[in-house]
Amino acid sequence: MATPVRVGIVGSQFVASIHAESVLRYPGAALAAVASPTAQHAQSFAERFHVPHWSTDPLAMIQSPEIDVVIIASPNDTHAPLTLAAAQAGKHVICEKPLCLNLAEADAMISACHQANVKLMYAEELCFAPKYVRLKQLLDSGALGRPTLLKQSEKHDGPHAAHFYDVNRSGGGVSMDMGCHAIAFFRWLLNNQRITSVYSQMNTFVHGNQTWGDDNSLIVLEFEGGCVALAEESWTKLGGMDDRAEVHGTQGVAYADLLRGNSIETYSRTGYDYAVEKAGGTQGWSFTMYEETWNYGFPQEIAHFLECVRDDKTPLVTGEDGRAVLEALFAAYASAGQGRKISLPFNSQAKRPVDLWKPPEDELRLSS
Amino acid sequence: MATPVRVGIVGSQFVASIHAESVLRYPGAALAAVASPTAQHAQSFAERFHVPHWSTDPLAMIQSPEIDVVIIASPNDTHAPLTLAAAQAGKHVICEKPLCLNLAEADAMISACHQANVKLMYAEELCFAPKYVRLKQLLDSGALGRPTLLKQSEKHDGPHAAHFYDVNRSGGGVSMDMGCHAIAFFRWLLNNQRITSVYSQMNTFVHGNQTWGDDNSLIVLEFEGGCVALAEESWTKLGGMDDRAEVHGTQGVAYADLLRGNSIETYSRTGYDYAVEKAGGTQGWSFTMYEETWNYGFPQEIAHFLECVRDDKTPLVTGEDGRAVLEALFAAYASAGQGRKISLPFNSQAKRPVDLWKPPEDELRLSS
Amino acid sequence: MATPVRVGIVGSQFVASIHAESVLRYPGAALAAVASPTAQHAQSFAERFHVPHWSTDPLAMIQSPEIDVVIIASPNDTHAPLTLAAAQAGKHVICEKPLCLNLAEADAMISACHQANVKLMYAEELCFAPKYVRLKQLLDSGALGRPTLLKQSEKHDGPHAAHFYDVNRSGGGVSMDMGCHAIAFFRWLLNNQRITSVYSQMNTFVHGNQTWGDDNSLIVLEFEGGCVALAEESWTKLGGMDDRAEVHGTQGVAYADLLRGNSIETYSRTGYDYAVEKAGGTQGWSFTMYEETWNYGFPQEIAHFLECVRDDKTPLVTGEDGRAVLEALFAAYASAGQGRKISLPFNSQAKRPVDLWKPPEDELRLSS
Amino acid sequence: MATPVRVGIVGSQFVASIHAESVLRYPGAALAAVASPTAQHAQSFAERFHVPHWSTDPLAMIQSPEIDVVIIASPNDTHAPLTLAAAQAGKHVICEKPLCLNLAEADAMISACHQANVKLMYAEELCFAPKYVRLKQLLDSGALGRPTLLKQSEKHDGPHAAHFYDVNRSGGGVSMDMGCHAIAFFRWLLNNQRITSVYSQMNTFVHGNQTWGDDNSLIVLEFEGGCVALAEESWTKLGGMDDRAEVHGTQGVAYADLLRGNSIETYSRTGYDYAVEKAGGTQGWSFTMYEETWNYGFPQEIAHFLECVRDDKTPLVTGEDGRAVLEALFAAYASAGQGRKISLPFNSQAKRPVDLWKPPEDELRLSS
Repeated sequence: MATPVRVGIVGSQFVASIHAESVLRYPGAALAAVASPTAQHAQSFAERFHVPHWSTDPLAMIQSPEIDVVIIASPNDTHAPLTLAAAQAGKHVICEKPLCLNLAEADAMISACHQANVKLMYAEELCFAPKYVRLKQLLDSGALGRPTLLKQSEKHDGPHAAHFYDVNRSGGGVSMDMGCHAIAFFRWLLNNQRITSVYSQMNTFVHGNQTWGDDNSLIVLEFEGGCVALAEESWTKLGGMDDRAEVHGTQGVAYADLLRGNSIETYSRTGYDYAVEKAGGTQGWSFTMYEETWNYGFPQEIAHFLECVRDDKTPLVTGEDGRAVLEALFAAYASAGQGRKISLPFNSQAKRPVDLWKPPEDELRLSS
Repeated sequence: MATPVRVGIVGSQFVASIHAESVLRYPGAALAAVASPTAQHAQSFAERFHVPHWSTDPLAMIQSPEIDVVIIASPNDTHAPLTLAAAQAGKHVICEKPLCLNLAEADAMISACHQANVKLMYAEELCFAPKYVRLKQLLDSGALGRPTLLKQSEKHDGPHAAHFYDVNRSGGGVSMDMGCHAIAFFRWLLNNQRITSVYSQMNTFVHGNQTWGDDNSLIVLEFEGGCVALAEESWTKLGGMDDRAEVHGTQGVAYADLLRGNSIETYSRTGYDYAVEKAGGTQGWSFTMYEETWNYGFPQEIAHFLECVRDDKTPLVTGEDGRAVLEALFAAYASAGQGRKISLPFNSQAKRPVDLWKPPEDELRLSS
Repeated sequence: MATPVRVGIVGSQFVASIHAESVLRYPGAALAAVASPTAQHAQSFAERFHVPHWSTDPLAMIQSPEIDVVIIASPNDTHAPLTLAAAQAGKHVICEKPLCLNLAEADAMISACHQANVKLMYAEELCFAPKYVRLKQLLDSGALGRPTLLKQSEKHDGPHAAHFYDVNRSGGGVSMDMGCHAIAFFRWLLNNQRITSVYSQMNTFVHGNQTWGDDNSLIVLEFEGGCVALAEESWTKLGGMDDRAEVHGTQGVAYADLLRGNSIETYSRTGYDYAVEKAGGTQGWSFTMYEETWNYGFPQEIAHFLECVRDDKTPLVTGEDGRAVLEALFAAYASAGQGRKISLPFNSQAKRPVDLWKPPEDELRLSS
Repeated sequence: MATPVRVGIVGSQFVASIHAESVLRYPGAALAAVASPTAQHAQSFAERFHVPHWSTDPLAMIQSPEIDVVIIASPNDTHAPLTLAAAQAGKHVICEKPLCLNLAEADAMISACHQANVKLMYAEELCFAPKYVRLKQLLDSGALGRPTLLKQSEKHDGPHAAHFYDVNRSGGGVSMDMGCHAIAFFRWLLNNQRITSVYSQMNTFVHGNQTWGDDNSLIVLEFEGGCVALAEESWTKLGGMDDRAEVHGTQGVAYADLLRGNSIETYSRTGYDYAVEKAGGTQGWSFTMYEETWNYGFPQEIAHFLECVRDDKTPLVTGEDGRAVLEALFAAYASAGQGRKISLPFNSQAKRPVDLWKPPEDELRLSS
């Protein structure tokens, strides 16, 4: 396409804003529309990012001839219906993580997009984070030998929006929300090798009054080639967002700290505007970050996806990758529930991953 | 006792040397004897540390009226017989980790020392490492709130002495050799709370031609009070010894890196004598450590134990603690073998922990 | 201008390549031509960056109607003549640091560009380095109170190209080549406050057989508002490029390490392709950087300058800033030569800063 | 001496306490007496450390037959009179830094002790700090090649006791109080090579209402062998005590951070008892130190000195070293006052170093 790719965004909160900025930074695309349930949100979003059209009707936006690509940046339970609508309307899809709520939805999304000959792109930004890209290059180059242990971890003190805590909307807790990053990251580092088993330890330590879901987890994955991976996730860690990875191999090891490692170490008696996401405060010592969205790979991710649309190329991260992550998440929740390692493939028919950890009957019983 | 406590050491290698130096640093004790199977080793050890008596007969030394305390710094399979002999001879015992090979031995050791009214002290030096002592104080003071996740990790590229790799002598691989540190560390941080379950992922990634045992492991423990602990152990990590811990709580978090965090960051084109244990080399960049044994808490540990003997006080770390660690190790190996979480108590009657991971029949079969 | 800004580059080595890439990243500009003394260099540069025209005649290129802006990325002694030619031809100028060889040249360059109504932009990329931009924001916001001490330092083990070591071409050694960064950085942090005095300690520790210039320096500057600044420069530091800054104030302090602070900490037994500029090697431990040019602010700098040309705005860093830096450098060399603090203004008529440190007569005498 | 060395301490505040603890840790000595002007202080000090005798009369204590060694841990202006008294009474002296107020006093102290055949030991603990000891070993071993630049820095937000701010008692500000550490440290690293020149930049940024002295300084020293050294001192740095050094050489470089580098990185929402000296607060992020006095080398220093007394050996750091440091401090203050490098030797007859920066006449004039 010579003309700019026209992008419609569903959602108006945090990650939708990040994607809007990323689209604005990519010269070959333009923001065409935004849709969000609350009119106020949609309208101020449109003003803020100079989006020509806004509405509270995502489906109408998706069907509009004015857009070519839909970015789905809305709660997890909307991912499948919106993707199916987009495929039906012949629009390419960039879908935020996690892909959707269950494997049946995932299969339907992949199939529909395939039939409609549109791209289903899975928005895992860690595959584009410059520091992690360099880390993968180190591994690929043989600098570390054969990988034996991969680690990735994301920890902060919990999201704000209510839908994260409502497992009917989210499908699970922190493992669903952030463990998906780690699982995709491990698959990407190992060039999409198959996961053979998943073990998980899940707990609700602090947010039990807010959610049925897990707020801390450890997930151990075994890969086909023999490598082991460990994901650590937390919604209860104070002191600011923490995102880091390690790659251990037979010839070396590499430690990559995405935030605290990159920050300015600052002491301010008075405090100041902003240190890093979820910092909690800036008085005293803080770790001051900058260019966070670039650091995470968000603009690079969107630029890549839009380029794939323009040039009809295969995206780095697809719906199939999103499904593979979701499958591992179902196994993780099942493992936490049963206290044993779960082998893959694991084609669970459960509606939501969290149901395999704490059966929904319990939810009903305990809330009555 | 006003007169110095007289110490006999069984063993003449790495940790025996460290203990000898520690005894020398403690004014209220004196090195009286050393015993080691190889005459040469025992003799040069005696010369090096000015020990008046050396022999190749540990039992004779233990029975000698010239000693009050035995330090057992010899391979794992000798811990039980030597401790029983010491108890019989009315000598106090400082026993290196892991306590012994199995729970029957542990029970016999504890019982014999109790009967003989001698102290059975378990040499877990991490309980004395100054940085970790400060970390525990932080936790105890409430600075971090209620603990939710504890982490401890020790990684290097493998021990040298052959007995570590011979599971008949050692009882297991890296989990046995270094996982015991983490398990004791977690119990100590939580004031000896009960472990309720253990899950473990074990692998032999690199040393498979040398040993039947594990050379990498991840161990997840659940504690009675709800806290989760994660131990990471490795005999395949290059670049020098790495020892670190984290404490996550409801009000904070603390990261303690015992070695790399404390080191001098050095670049030397030519290289130099020594950076840190198992550094692998000193050319280019290295992390130069200093006062390593003090940093690990070895002299403080021995001073404490000898003081307990002098003043008839209860040691910080006892044979019961050593047994609790061993029990968790049996559960860890069983977990790795079965792919499921093992609940405690776990009074295994297996002869060696590794047998629960890979049955000894396999060992025989594969080596024929 | 709606049409792309057309850029001609003089130079074909390291920094010229960086600028070429930056121009390519900016959508509103295009690379039109490159000129370099050696035909081979100019030609392969043109091939590599898809530049339509190449030649060995910078003056012809400058006068070509096919370009709007000249980037001068050639040795220091060419900066003035090329800028005057550009002004005469009505072209805007982006001039690499240091501005030129002496204050007379600087005045001529500023005057000529002013007369010709073209912009003279001084390419100090540290004013665009994202981490340093955030650092300035911290200071500007009051987070650190009133600044008392600023520090900036750049150290590596020496440039490769011969012209750096030939003071006839360069004007000085490391202070001229890298001290200029720090001086500009301090002025920028303090919003172009006046420097009132300069003291400098200069040495030639290692490169004495290659150059008449300094290879290590400490430069102490006093600013009008009372703040003190300390620059440390070195061409003799092994282990890789090191670039860092500190801002101390009455309410706080901030430490910003641009490279080692941002890197992946890697151990590789075998080594690998590249860690960081001037790393020296990658075997063993290294600090692996990524996106270095972005990290330094190069593409952001060029984008800003080209935007200023497009939209006729005042650039952040101008020829006047470059002259102020040069004046401080003359004072620094004079200070090193006299062993005393030099007050500013210091309108030296010397031909090259290094002449105030070691009189050229000495150079002649010693080389005969 | 077989009997314990009996120690009398003059002083009862911070550093006197540290020395008392150090004496208690050394088995070959005993605390015999303490003297301090305020009876309350002397008495509670005696209670706290179980010192048999306390008084408000240092001279009487010094002359007592019950002591063998005097530790002078009282304000700077008392160092000379007390040392002379000690020498006259035939007592060995451990004198805190800086040695005294001026070179005449220094000469008298050295001469008196020499005549009386008693040791004059200069308490520069950085020569015993384990991390710095290792750093010197690295340099001595050739790992870093020939030294080109040494750096040492101590920064916090100012002492509490009033006498530090009274230049009549102290002789100067932060350069006198903490610059002496760096100067001694550099001499020690270079095996007591001669200092050939000193340049200094001094400022009073924050404490001008409290003191006539400097509260920030940069001191540049040239050494006979060609090495340059840079000391940075501050009484205005917030966020906790900071103590670090760097050694740059022709074959390498080493960075040693004594406190923040060794600390536990802690986030605590509530805060806790103590992070590090002068931390300012413990809520939010802090750098938790432990065993600070050991880390600084205080007990090792006292053990060394007392051993020298016992075994009649030459101490590592003597009164002559203290005099050399003081001479450099006089040169530093002169340099700051004149804005030029001062060559050594510099046998100033000024009464106090600060007088060479700001003549006392100004002090009188400005305070009238």
